[in-house]
Parts: sequence; structure tokens; C-alpha cells
Amino acid sequence: MTTMLDATHDPSLRSWVPGADGHPDFPIQNLPFGIFSPPGGTPRGGVAIGDHILDLPAALEAELFSGAAREAAIAAGANTLNGFMAMGAAPRQALRQRLSAMLAAGSPDRDAAGPCLHRAADCSMHLPARIGDYTDFYVGIHHATNVGRVFRPDDPLLPNYKHVPIGYHGRASSVRVSGTDVRRPSGQLKPRGADAPHFAPCRSLDYELELGVWIGPGNALGDPVPVAEAPSHVAGFCLLNDWSARDIQAWEAQPLGPFLAKNFGTTVSPWVVTPEALAPFRIPQPARPAGDPAPLPHLLDEADQQSGALDLLLEVLIHTPAMRERNMAPHRLALSNARHMYWTVAQILAHHSSNGCNLGPGDLLGTGTLSAPDPAGFGSLLETTRGGREPVELPSGETRRFLEDGDEVILRARAARDGAASIGFGECRARILPAR
Amino acid sequence: MTTMLDATHDPSLRSWVPGADGHPDFPIQNLPFGIFSPPGGTPRGGVAIGDHILDLPAALEAELFSGAAREAAIAAGANTLNGFMAMGAAPRQALRQRLSAMLAAGSPDRDAAGPCLHRAADCSMHLPARIGDYTDFYVGIHHATNVGRVFRPDDPLLPNYKHVPIGYHGRASSVRVSGTDVRRPSGQLKPRGADAPHFAPCRSLDYELELGVWIGPGNALGDPVPVAEAPSHVAGFCLLNDWSARDIQAWEAQPLGPFLAKNFGTTVSPWVVTPEALAPFRIPQPARPAGDPAPLPHLLDEADQQSGALDLLLEVLIHTPAMRERNMAPHRLALSNARHMYWTVAQILAHHSSNGCNLGPGDLLGTGTLSAPDPAGFGSLLETTRGGREPVELPSGETRRFLEDGDEVILRARAARDGAASIGFGECRARILPAR
Repeated sequence: MTTMLDATHDPSLRSWVPGADGHPDFPIQNLPFGIFSPPGGTPRGGVAIGDHILDLPAALEAELFSGAAREAAIAAGANTLNGFMAMGAAPRQALRQRLSAMLAAGSPDRDAAGPCLHRAADCSMHLPARIGDYTDFYVGIHHATNVGRVFRPDDPLLPNYKHVPIGYHGRASSVRVSGTDVRRPSGQLKPRGADAPHFAPCRSLDYELELGVWIGPGNALGDPVPVAEAPSHVAGFCLLNDWSARDIQAWEAQPLGPFLAKNFGTTVSPWVVTPEALAPFRIPQPARPAGDPAPLPHLLDEADQQSGALDLLLEVLIHTPAMRERNMAPHRLALSNARHMYWTVAQILAHHSSNGCNLGPGDLLGTGTLSAPDPAGFGSLLETTRGGREPVELPSGETRRFLEDGDEVILRARAARDGAASIGFGECRARILPAR
Repeated sequence: MTTMLDATHDPSLRSWVPGADGHPDFPIQNLPFGIFSPPGGTPRGGVAIGDHILDLPAALEAELFSGAAREAAIAAGANTLNGFMAMGAAPRQALRQRLSAMLAAGSPDRDAAGPCLHRAADCSMHLPARIGDYTDFYVGIHHATNVGRVFRPDDPLLPNYKHVPIGYHGRASSVRVSGTDVRRPSGQLKPRGADAPHFAPCRSLDYELELGVWIGPGNALGDPVPVAEAPSHVAGFCLLNDWSARDIQAWEAQPLGPFLAKNFGTTVSPWVVTPEALAPFRIPQPARPAGDPAPLPHLLDEADQQSGALDLLLEVLIHTPAMRERNMAPHRLALSNARHMYWTVAQILAHHSSNGCNLGPGDLLGTGTLSAPDPAGFGSLLETTRGGREPVELPSGETRRFLEDGDEVILRARAARDGAASIGFGECRARILPAR
């Protein structure tokens, strides 16, 4: 299922909403969905357009929708997007078409739709869906190589890496929307050379730069999703920060994987950027280096190989208390790209269900850290500071081995390409609170 | 929080419900909660008593409850027990007191309550709760030792095992109630000596004998549950079969732990056996062998050490198609005991939340496989057949290295002790369907 480009993608399309044209994240070509509360109001579905949010229940009240678009708007206007995600691609596409026409410059709906807009700055954002299960993958091959090199300098990737899209189950209950503070966890730490562990606040708190994938219709238990059908089960994308306590992780993770090192918090950006909005930024899956095994047949689809990867810039920034005090802008720690996924989203999804495991609307997948090959694009401090040994210098004159209390980490994404309007994801941002 | 014994535990207590007295699982001293549908009816909460189920909405309709017990019965009568689990211990105990009086021989409520009973055999059972997150632990030390010995014959337990209650996140979406068939998964297999993996049906399908723990009120994100308070967050217990595809597991599990080897299905028994019902079977946590480290202070509570363990017999049986055809009874594969947990349930729960991870009503914990030290009590075929090398012989003349299609696996639990009425959990049973 490749989404065709249509009038909604036209880079010359303009909107009557002030500030939407040329907006770095939400021009009229994006139209992502999210759950927000207007001032004094309850949570409901909305659409980001420039610095505003279109209130879907209000637009329904104003009778701005009909047919399939209306059915989709009713689902997307609820207090979670689960029902909308369950509907799949066709209603979502109908709604996109209608929203694009409604918000386009010259639209006859301007007078009716205008009162349905809220200034985004006045609203609060919520998680877009009740998350059933959250799974985190490990498909950023440069990250896996960097981490593996610590243990196996000459052979950093384990033998299964190029055959299996490696993943593990994360904690759904502690996923929070951008803007929610993250409490530094305590845990069992066993510093090198210590005889026994002790319980103390984490000393090597880290971020991980990831793409998040929201699941749409999903599959029944026992019925795998073929890789060719996998794209129809993707409801959209977000940014995801998989906060990681490296010292807790080092002590606990054998033999069953990360647990308390990760499940104290995961932050996602609030807007669900649709597969339709990202259609202009599809690229072929980068060729595997010579000598790499071909994917097994159940993970291989020609269309997916041709257009299953995403050309999407990913950025991590830090804003320390000292930087805020001095009114300095956040400092970029890394610039990477979603093209560094060794497996496509369709391959991840097909693999996840290949044993019959059931995925459902509102489930969340993380890609794993998407580091670029060069150090300027490493997606975690573990990599950037080489395990804390080489502190990074900040323009404030400070250094960081790992995150300190009060630090704010900001993830951003931006899709840009000749002949397409550039779009972004909005921010995935959170600040570290001291340990309790 | 140690539950005191009271009149509801009196072994001489009798019930007017036919067949309840001396029932192996559900005499009047047990009174577990579950979600069932009567013939032609919708899912609702009920209480198992002998071979019958008390219909809580019907009993509410008959005005059989008042005060705190009524509030609890309203919550427990809903179509999931999440709301009831959220209420905590005091309302649950009030409801238990009332149910015990109502169902006791000589109760004046017999005429009103009698019509609220359904024959259990006519009803269908459902999952007792919407499961938010499911976490599986690894605290059966004999199992961990047996599995570790395969890789490290002289030093089977990893250095963290006696410090950290090892656990990992499982898949909530594929947990099913007893009686639901389990489809044999396919996955990537890489037999010893093969150059590359292939995708095929699992050839070493296994069960794992576990105790399940249903979480009650739980904690807010960032607020750990102290070990001394942990028991008040336990809503009850069940049996749990953590189906495991050993060949998929062997190839996928490094470095992030089991994933597709486990998430195709987990089976739980339908009845939530309360901490109150199990109060007579509390025992001191068995002393750690000399030389083992003491638990860190945040995992150590004197009351928990005195009465935090459970004396609960656990049994696995197999019923093959050939055995069913010849009307043979299921064959016992193992008899073990919940006392083989190296960490108590309170320690597991305190550890899980020690980094601030939030647990909530309806979350499910598995203990990990609870093997006894002797081979007659090994809780998985991986252990019993030593990785498939020593097939187990069945009374039907068949042998098994791992499970075959059509095999049914049955878990049972039984608490028995001098001076207490013995109770059971009912069955956790499922049959293997061939791979698709």
C-alpha cells in the first residue's frame, strides 16, 4: 500500500489560517491528529494547522463534514484516537481530503471553520491514544553497532541482528506526552569494582532518539500480518524518547533484557503524523551492504523495498538550567535521519505479528535509537560521550557526561525534499526532576 | 499488612450450596472473584462456590448487600474486575465477610441467594480484568539454575540473580483465559549447525508453570511502593502458563530478552483467589542459603520475611489426543510449590516500582517458572527433558520432548495445611492448535 500523492501534498497549496503557510511543522500539507484540551475544556480530538488547532467536535457541530469524512471526524474527535486508528486508511484519507479543502486559502468554509480554531499555545496536549502495548525495537544499526562495540570491539553486532528485527516489550503505563517532567529513577547500581550493588539515584541518565509508530487496525491473535499488508496497519508516527538509566541497565539486563532501566518513563510527541502526510518523503530502503543476508521471504516485499523507508531528519537538543537562565537557545546534540533503520516499519510490524502476536489500535512501537554513522548524529549520550568518558561541551561552558537534574531534552523531526512542502512533527520535550 | 484469620477461614464452616463442602477448589473458605457469562447472558462479575457461580448483579438486584460490601459488590459485578481491584483490601474484605455469611449453612439469605446461582458448567469464563501491563519475573530459583546450567554448568546463576528480582515486560494483548486454544507459532529458527535461519513452525513448544499476581490500587508514576506496603496492592492470584517457543527464543533473545518466543500467548486461570483466602497458607520466606547476600534495605521488611511466602502446591498435567481417545486421565508432569520463589510477591512488587514505574489495577505479574529442586517438580519441558534430550514417557506409551499439536496442558494449584480448609485455584488449561 503506497499512498499516492494528490492535491493535499501540493507544495503551492496555501491556507487561510494565519501563520500556517511556511510553518516549520504544521503547514496545510501535514494535518496531523492529536488529543487536546482547550482552555477550560475537556480532552477531544483536533488537527494541528500552523499555530492553531482545529477542534473536531466543534467542526462537527458546525456541520463541516459529511459522508466518510464525517464518520472519521466523529472517531477522531473523541477523547482518544483509538477508534479513529481502528478505522484504517480509507476514512483517514477521506478526512484528510476534506480538512485540506476546508483549510485551504479561498475555501468557502472559512467563516464556519474559523470559530473552531484554538490557539495551540492556550491548549494542553494529551497522549493521542490509550496505549495497549508498547514495543521497542533496536533497528538503528549504527546505534546497535556503537553499543555492541563496547562489549565486542571486533564484532559488534550479534549473529541474529541482520536476520531478526530485534525488539522487546516496554512499559505502556509510563508513556507520557511531551511536556511531562521525568523523575530521575533510583535503582540498584553496581559500579565497576564494587563488591555488591547499592540502591541510589541513577547517575547515568540518558535519552534515546527514536521514531514512534502508532498502530491502526491490527490483527487477531494467531493471524500474522503479511509484510505487504503491514503499511495499512500504521496509523501514524511520532517522536519517542526512550529514557534510559545506563547504570541500572548494566546491572539488571542479563539475561532477560532492560526493565527498570527503561520503564520509569517514555516521552512521545503529541501529534500523530499520518502516513499520507509522509508520503512525499518515502524513499527506497537503503541497499544492504555487500555480504549482508537478504531478509527472509516473510519480511521481503518489493514495494516495501522500493518505498518503505523514510527520509526524515531527526534532531536532539539540550536546554540546561544555566542555558535557560542566560536565555540561550537549546543546543543541538545530534542530527540524524530515519533512513538509518536497518528494517522498514513494515518489516518490523510483519515480524512482530509473524508468530501470531496480535497488535491493536493505539499500540505503540519504538524504532530504537536512530543514530547516524558519524558522531554528530549519535542518538544517545552513551554513544556521544562514549559511555561518559568523553564529556560533550555545551555553549554555556558546561559539560555533560549524562543528563543532570533540570536538563530539558527536546527531539524534533523535519521532512524536507525538493518539490514537496516541508513538514515537521512538533516537539517531544521533557525536563528531568531530581530523584525522590 | 498481614491478613488476620477470621470466621471466614474456619475449616468447620459449611455452605448450603450443594457440592461446596469439600470441593477441591471452591469451598466456602475460598470465595474467588471472576468474570463470567451465564447462558445467553453478558459478561459480569461472580463468585465461585463449589460447582456454582454466584451472580453478583443478580445478588445486588435481590438486595443482598448493604454498606461497604454493597459498594464492593457493585464494582465486582461489572464486566471487568478493574474497578474492584482499584478499591483495595478493605472493601474486598467487607464483601468477603458478607458473602461468607450469605452462603454459610443456616444463612437466612438462602432463599434470596439461591436463584442467583448458576451452574459453573453452563457458564463461560472471561479474563478477569482488562490487563494494562503484564510483567513476567524469573524468581523461581531452581528454574533459573536449571536454565543457567545449560550455558554455565559451574556457575549457573548470573551475578545479579540474588540481588535483583529479575523480570521483563511481556505482552498484555495475547493473555487469554483458560480454555482458549493456543496456536503453535512460527518464527525464525536456526538449528545448531545451520548456516542461516529459516521461518517455520516452532518445533520446541513448551509450557511454564507460574503463579500470576493481579495488581490492586497501584502507584502514581514516580512514587515507589515501599515493600511493607506492597501487599496492600495485591488484588489476588491466579495460575499462569507462559507458553514458550524454545527454538525461537534461542535465536532471538540476545541482547534484549525473549520477545516472539513468548508473546504469541499466555494463559491464566479465570478465578482471582484473594489474599484473604490465602491467608492461612502464608509461611515465612525460606531462609537464604548461607553465603547468599541479604536483600537490599528497600526490599527487606520483617513482616514480609515472616509471612510473605506461600505454601501452595502447583501441578502441571498433560492430556494428549491419544490419552483423550482412550479416556485416560491427564498425566501429571510435575508437582511443585510456590515456596520455591527466591523473592516474595511483596519484594517483586516493591522492586518493580522502586524506580517509580507505575502499576495499576488489572496489571498482571507472573512469577516465572516455579520448579522444585527435584526433577519431579520441574516446571517446564526444557528442564524435565533436559532440552529435549531425555523424552518424558507418558502412560499412553507416547513420549514427549516438547509439546505436540492437540496436547492439552493443565495447571492446578492447591493450598492445604493442618487446621485449615484446603482450597484450590481451578484449572488453567489450553490445547495446542497446529501452526497456520
